[in-house]
Amino acid sequence: MARALDFYFDFSSPYGYIASTKIDALAGKHGREVIWRPILLGITFKRTGQAPLPSVPLKGDYSRHDFARSARYHGVPFRQPSVFPIPTQAPARAFHWVNERDADAAKALAHALYRAYFLDDVNISNPSDTIAIAEGLGHDADALRAALEDAALKDKVKLEVEAAIARGVFGSPFVFVDDEPFWGVDRLDQIERWLESGGF
Amino acid sequence: MARALDFYFDFSSPYGYIASTKIDALAGKHGREVIWRPILLGITFKRTGQAPLPSVPLKGDYSRHDFARSARYHGVPFRQPSVFPIPTQAPARAFHWVNERDADAAKALAHALYRAYFLDDVNISNPSDTIAIAEGLGHDADALRAALEDAALKDKVKLEVEAAIARGVFGSPFVFVDDEPFWGVDRLDQIERWLESGGF
Repeated sequence: MARALDFYFDFSSPYGYIASTKIDALAGKHGREVIWRPILLGITFKRTGQAPLPSVPLKGDYSRHDFARSARYHGVPFRQPSVFPIPTQAPARAFHWVNERDADAAKALAHALYRAYFLDDVNISNPSDTIAIAEGLGHDADALRAALEDAALKDKVKLEVEAAIARGVFGSPFVFVDDEPFWGVDRLDQIERWLESGGF
Repeated sequence: MARALDFYFDFSSPYGYIASTKIDALAGKHGREVIWRPILLGITFKRTGQAPLPSVPLKGDYSRHDFARSARYHGVPFRQPSVFPIPTQAPARAFHWVNERDADAAKALAHALYRAYFLDDVNISNPSDTIAIAEGLGHDADALRAALEDAALKDKVKLEVEAAIARGVFGSPFVFVDDEPFWGVDRLDQIERWLESGGF
């Protein structure tokens, strides 16, 4: 089996959300699996001196417009969250907590968290909201609540982000096909051609 | 005749260069003309607090890789210039000087300047190089040399950049279809669908 793609994303990233609805099917068409890897853009932005899109003059206004238009272009339902962007420690930690036992269940949780934030305007930065969504998928709410405060899980998420940065990740979505890096939902076309032809 | 598209670009922008080889054909397929409008990213970046891509940690390395890969993806010949990025007052002023008399000749000059910079590694920030390229297309070298130092032409270019910023332009390429803004060569697909369907 060919090597799995690595899909890095932040739970507050509209372009990450759009890509999350496409990446498994795209990879699967070419016999590839996808490993999902939530990151924390707050940390990567500090490291690279970038600012969150909405705070950049001109670019911020454009981006809000482009989020919704790109979602329509890709046929993905989208509503601009009223609180945006948000810190995403709670959903990232919940993802990893589930992922340690079951990668498919973690992907299902990620889809549910993204839908909650980008369709139902649920602020998933609140641990209680993230926990409720996980509980709705059959996960143990009390165990997750305890895990979200567990130092080992916090460290694991931080280490994942540091490993991503060490690999060159600075935005969301960010995909590696073998060792080839692709940043942005607007690189899905290039990813597809790369998978078809093994490079170009 | 439907309204012309506005194509904003900086002569130092690899993505602007790639788009410059596509935009007229794309618009023409849908019965539209294109007005070319060189800008100075040095000014827009100061206004929005952005930094040139190569100077941003991680993003800079990725971008250099992506410039060449995106050029291959779009089938456009490309070589990374040894001096990059460059200030683009000289080519922008030369473009406007020609454009005041002949828009098609100005586009031909823009293509030649872009090819010189992104294929032949000619540093078009040097007025002498820009003038030599214009002369090769039949323009009067002495007249252009004088024009490049003309205060009125300098002011015109600055006013064009200010007008672009006032319209929301913050990067290159930046295209308006009617009043709809599209940033980046990776929005050509969306531009195409917008032209086909009058919006989506």
